[in-house]
Amino acid sequence: MSETTTVAELARRARDAAPILAIATTAKKDAGLRAAADYLEANRDGILEANAQDVARGKADGMAPGFLDRLQLDAGRVVGMASGLRQVANLSDPVGRVTAEWTRPNGLHLTKVRVPLGVVAMIYENRPNVTSDAFGLCLKAGNVAFLRGSSGGLESNRAIATSIRSALEDVDLPADALILVEDVSREAAVEFMQQRGYVDCLIPRGGPSLIRSILDNATVPYVIDGDGNCHVYVDESADLDMATEILVNAKMQRPSVCNAAESLVVHAAVADRFLPQAVEALAGVDLVGDERARAVVPSMGEASEDDWSTEYGDLKLSVRVVDDLDEAIQHVNKTGSGHSEAIITTDEQASARFAAEVDAAAVVVNASTRFVDGEEFGFGAEIGISTQKLHARGPMGLEQLTTEKYVIRGDGQTRN
Amino acid sequence: MSETTTVAELARRARDAAPILAIATTAKKDAGLRAAADYLEANRDGILEANAQDVARGKADGMAPGFLDRLQLDAGRVVGMASGLRQVANLSDPVGRVTAEWTRPNGLHLTKVRVPLGVVAMIYENRPNVTSDAFGLCLKAGNVAFLRGSSGGLESNRAIATSIRSALEDVDLPADALILVEDVSREAAVEFMQQRGYVDCLIPRGGPSLIRSILDNATVPYVIDGDGNCHVYVDESADLDMATEILVNAKMQRPSVCNAAESLVVHAAVADRFLPQAVEALAGVDLVGDERARAVVPSMGEASEDDWSTEYGDLKLSVRVVDDLDEAIQHVNKTGSGHSEAIITTDEQASARFAAEVDAAAVVVNASTRFVDGEEFGFGAEIGISTQKLHARGPMGLEQLTTEKYVIRGDGQTRN
Repeated sequence: MSETTTVAELARRARDAAPILAIATTAKKDAGLRAAADYLEANRDGILEANAQDVARGKADGMAPGFLDRLQLDAGRVVGMASGLRQVANLSDPVGRVTAEWTRPNGLHLTKVRVPLGVVAMIYENRPNVTSDAFGLCLKAGNVAFLRGSSGGLESNRAIATSIRSALEDVDLPADALILVEDVSREAAVEFMQQRGYVDCLIPRGGPSLIRSILDNATVPYVIDGDGNCHVYVDESADLDMATEILVNAKMQRPSVCNAAESLVVHAAVADRFLPQAVEALAGVDLVGDERARAVVPSMGEASEDDWSTEYGDLKLSVRVVDDLDEAIQHVNKTGSGHSEAIITTDEQASARFAAEVDAAAVVVNASTRFVDGEEFGFGAEIGISTQKLHARGPMGLEQLTTEKYVIRGDGQTRN
Repeated sequence: MSETTTVAELARRARDAAPILAIATTAKKDAGLRAAADYLEANRDGILEANAQDVARGKADGMAPGFLDRLQLDAGRVVGMASGLRQVANLSDPVGRVTAEWTRPNGLHLTKVRVPLGVVAMIYENRPNVTSDAFGLCLKAGNVAFLRGSSGGLESNRAIATSIRSALEDVDLPADALILVEDVSREAAVEFMQQRGYVDCLIPRGGPSLIRSILDNATVPYVIDGDGNCHVYVDESADLDMATEILVNAKMQRPSVCNAAESLVVHAAVADRFLPQAVEALAGVDLVGDERARAVVPSMGEASEDDWSTEYGDLKLSVRVVDDLDEAIQHVNKTGSGHSEAIITTDEQASARFAAEVDAAAVVVNASTRFVDGEEFGFGAEIGISTQKLHARGPMGLEQLTTEKYVIRGDGQTRN
């Protein structure tokens, strides 16, 4: 993995390692995960030293505080990475699971079986923990983790990857189950997205410019972990106290994440009663509304057309009053990003229509959008939340890191 | 749908029709399919007249006989399209099917439900029947069919689309459930692949240059229906008479299709006995082999390195002798296209290893590769066979034209 090794060569190595991982037993993969956890803890000081270099460079380069925070490791974060790997070892192995099975009139017996994707590529921004987390999920699902972190985290990523690779060799798994591309140039990023035939799935973790670059350049199949412009719709039949609690939770509990609420939509019949109580509970949140919302709460700022489709990722919320459920659904479908959309209602018919007609990865009835998450779903871990419709939609856990294969068994059948 | 309507405008119309189709009842969709079938039969003469214009133009332009054959319609083919639509009406509707359901310790109830993709785009070469077939499967799965045929089939496609659109209006479904792009320029094809936000899934049906153009230009998600370089591996324990029958069927029953065999791989221990009998049974097939195969059958041509990864689509077969199962699996994985791979063996362990280690959409044990097909699997119909690993792998039926959505029901839960 010297810096002179080209991306294409590394991709070939990833491909070569894939068949070995594809048939590795669960016990072997779990041993690899536990050994990797032990190595991370044992090499903690070296990892923190490498990280300190990245942080110092980031500071010198004027990196924003939020980025620095995500880059910086401490003893607790290293332990967190290690325990994350041990948790994945405790999850059940999706590989080999039979998802369908039937026999045809001609006697052919068909099974559909979960198998690893092969080589999973991830391109990500500063967070060094992704190096370990992505590796863990990839290994458990029988995949090679082919990773390309950003320049800002290079030393940290290298230290983590080196530890994990040594651990893998210790348990007799190929070190190439984790391959880190250390060429952090833009050209290498583009090359990374174009290893068709070597990479089975690319998962980007980053902002809009990275997503744009994938759309422009990638020739390998990819799954996009997109924006979350999530709405909370308060229906005319809603329990308004419940609505207030859910709204506050969805907006304020962790505003920077993708399943946080960005917009409140209120039925006109309850706007007068609901908005004042909601505004009080949302103290500290910057509110911008349409004309009708501002008629009820004049202190509210004026929402621009852009506000309706903006993911603030911050303590800000847009507020819109609608005439009925139809208008609510239309507004959500027009401005949402297909992530998570909530309705608060006591009307079964309204919740059924909202669930059926809203086009999103997840529709939430009478609960916070913050529950749309792999851990909260009980997946044990997640590698991202897909807002696309192909392959995986919503939280991606181990199962979404596999594909399926048909196995057809006969006794000499030929086709007429 | 005048020729001056831009691709982008048509894509917006497709998007607008999608929510209506998404909640259309099964009965309504089936009525649309049956009405479309009736209209195709009623307008048979007009469709054949339009087709005659395409065929005349194709002949004048020197179109190859194979292409002309795929382009040409007759009364029987029109009836075939109509009965295809009626068959799809008889298939069960995948939309609304609950594929998973569970309750979390906090009382949240989760369901995973099949929902339409939304707008399914297809770009295809001359065959006018695709206009009707693709529409049928898309409608049944609740999707808009956004279609772009080639210039060679324009008149036929227009006549078919016009009939179907009239039928849809008759049963009170949006005519825009089928939108045909009539601009057959190259620029329009590229624009068609770039309607991100409007198209949910693009499925190309065409040759390598179309696939290349998708990889270079598409910004919408796509599923590729790729090559089929399928192998038949005859193991040392194989019933050699069964092997011969299967090989002949896989190669000769319909050599032009993607699930036909292109390469024979024989275990060295049985090459002396098997090859002479196989060659005799394959009379009329052009055989090219490696040195060991030619030592047994000197009349065989010499295979070049390219032969091993070539899909002939014709009465030609490459032949290779391998030392053992390991070499067979390696060879298949190196040269195969991930479509369908067969093993003929009586050894359970060998078939289990081949099934586990060969990386393909379908692995076939003791049967012909020709069975890898939506109809033969019992899907009722297919829109293609995917050789990619994301979203759909293998034959794509109605289910593969849907995605899933999580519906989460609570009673006021918020996240800590």
